[in-house]
Amino acid sequence: MSLLVVFDLLGIFVFALSGATAAVENELDLFGVLVLSSVAAIGGGLLRDVLLGALPPAAFLDGRYLLVPIVAGLLVFVGSHYVERLAAPVRLFDAAGLGLFVAAGTTKALEAGLGPVAAIALGSITGIGGGIARDVLVGVVPVVLRRELYAIPTILGASVVVIGDGLGAPRTPTVVLCALLVFSVRMLGVWRDWHFPTARVSRPEL
Amino acid sequence: MSLLVVFDLLGIFVFALSGATAAVENELDLFGVLVLSSVAAIGGGLLRDVLLGALPPAAFLDGRYLLVPIVAGLLVFVGSHYVERLAAPVRLFDAAGLGLFVAAGTTKALEAGLGPVAAIALGSITGIGGGIARDVLVGVVPVVLRRELYAIPTILGASVVVIGDGLGAPRTPTVVLCALLVFSVRMLGVWRDWHFPTARVSRPEL
Amino acid sequence: MSLLVVFDLLGIFVFALSGATAAVENELDLFGVLVLSSVAAIGGGLLRDVLLGALPPAAFLDGRYLLVPIVAGLLVFVGSHYVERLAAPVRLFDAAGLGLFVAAGTTKALEAGLGPVAAIALGSITGIGGGIARDVLVGVVPVVLRRELYAIPTILGASVVVIGDGLGAPRTPTVVLCALLVFSVRMLGVWRDWHFPTARVSRPEL
Repeated sequence: MSLLVVFDLLGIFVFALSGATAAVENELDLFGVLVLSSVAAIGGGLLRDVLLGALPPAAFLDGRYLLVPIVAGLLVFVGSHYVERLAAPVRLFDAAGLGLFVAAGTTKALEAGLGPVAAIALGSITGIGGGIARDVLVGVVPVVLRRELYAIPTILGASVVVIGDGLGAPRTPTVVLCALLVFSVRMLGVWRDWHFPTARVSRPEL
Repeated sequence: MSLLVVFDLLGIFVFALSGATAAVENELDLFGVLVLSSVAAIGGGLLRDVLLGALPPAAFLDGRYLLVPIVAGLLVFVGSHYVERLAAPVRLFDAAGLGLFVAAGTTKALEAGLGPVAAIALGSITGIGGGIARDVLVGVVPVVLRRELYAIPTILGASVVVIGDGLGAPRTPTVVLCALLVFSVRMLGVWRDWHFPTARVSRPEL
Repeated sequence: MSLLVVFDLLGIFVFALSGATAAVENELDLFGVLVLSSVAAIGGGLLRDVLLGALPPAAFLDGRYLLVPIVAGLLVFVGSHYVERLAAPVRLFDAAGLGLFVAAGTTKALEAGLGPVAAIALGSITGIGGGIARDVLVGVVPVVLRRELYAIPTILGASVVVIGDGLGAPRTPTVVLCALLVFSVRMLGVWRDWHFPTARVSRPEL
């Protein structure tokens, strides 16, 4: 098992934890917990592969990509009393997972021949699509669209891969730089409690 | 028209009834009723075909798959006063439809070369995807993720098809066994009011 | 840049305005505004291309289709104080965009070999899919399913394209007629405040 696969599965694992935690908080049953952990973990990658026409999606061709979310879901279900203690480490892994997902998604989009803007869009979808689907399923306006500062690290990281590709830089260091950048900026945002601006609204209703 | 097609259209019809009923209860207009009956009826199959890359989806290649939900939607719209009397028979057909959808979805996934875990996942998506989409569209956390015991019959049934395939059993009896098992376990769950467990949550908010 | 592309980008622009406006009203941050303007603008076309298997989708192969929603989102974000004054012109362009999207979607479906019912369904999905996704993301039951009279112009317009195709009429005048019809009927509905009927519900709960 290569180091890249290890990191990939680790990213899937922590994204799955976030999905299972959301499910437990919303009092879904065990099945709902497993569905939400899977959706959060592999939803972004599924969406990427569907949009690229790379079907069946990678997650369906390797049993581990489906089993890891199930294991994560069962752990959260059984250990739901202890979930709050895991908040800090999960956030760390979540930032790492985001970096890996954005790097992988942007790279795959470039390899499929997409242009720079589309590649950044697809890398972002890979990184945040699972979290959006998770929130929609529990009836919540996706947190990434409201206040969590996911966008800046995501777009910065995807841009690094696109620029590196445009300059003809070798793929591996670019991908590593992207993942590290996403991770650092995301953790910095969490640590300093950075938020994206919201617009002033002058009217009470439409 | 073969018996399989008859059962398939019957499954689509009862799933469409569930979508149209949800639409009427949420005071959607006639168009919303038709959209929800279609989404509930063919949404799971569309998702399956998209993920398999079998495009355009089967439901778009046979006009009947689109016309049956429209007929069901119109019936519910016109007869909304009588919908409650139909609850018991609809539940029966719904369980039958679930069996047929799971059997068909798992089989199609195996024939596309997917492994056992992915085939079970795709069979389940075929069976419950339409109901999830229906609930998301009316702003409700999907009932199948919360309390209805759809998961056990769905996964059991899909596993029967996968195991039968692994043992080299002929397809037809396996599919029939799957559909019967899903139907029986689902009806048993409805009759005995079985629910899936939910996790204890010790903290009021995140 | 041909006239058709100009109209297409104009349709995307006004649909993006509707998405960005919904985002600002729901107090999403800047990133959420950009995501919602993109989803509303190109979501229907993405869904159409996914269902047709025309992947990667057209919107990912032409950078302008991704940049126009970003510009529209930034304009709404910066000028959110003035959004209400734009309601009337936006509704006009929205009706025009609907006409162009339905015409383009139905035509693409016919060219992919789909039958009349499926082509009408896919043309409708192209026209209203983005608005539905926009509403789901902000946790609202899609307005097009509840009261806005989008369905009649949409289905009428798509039917014109299908009937014209069946009669062997040349494509261009049929498409123009479809777009004009959708636009006129939609504006007439806005002007006369037409709504689709909803069903009477006699029972308080299921």
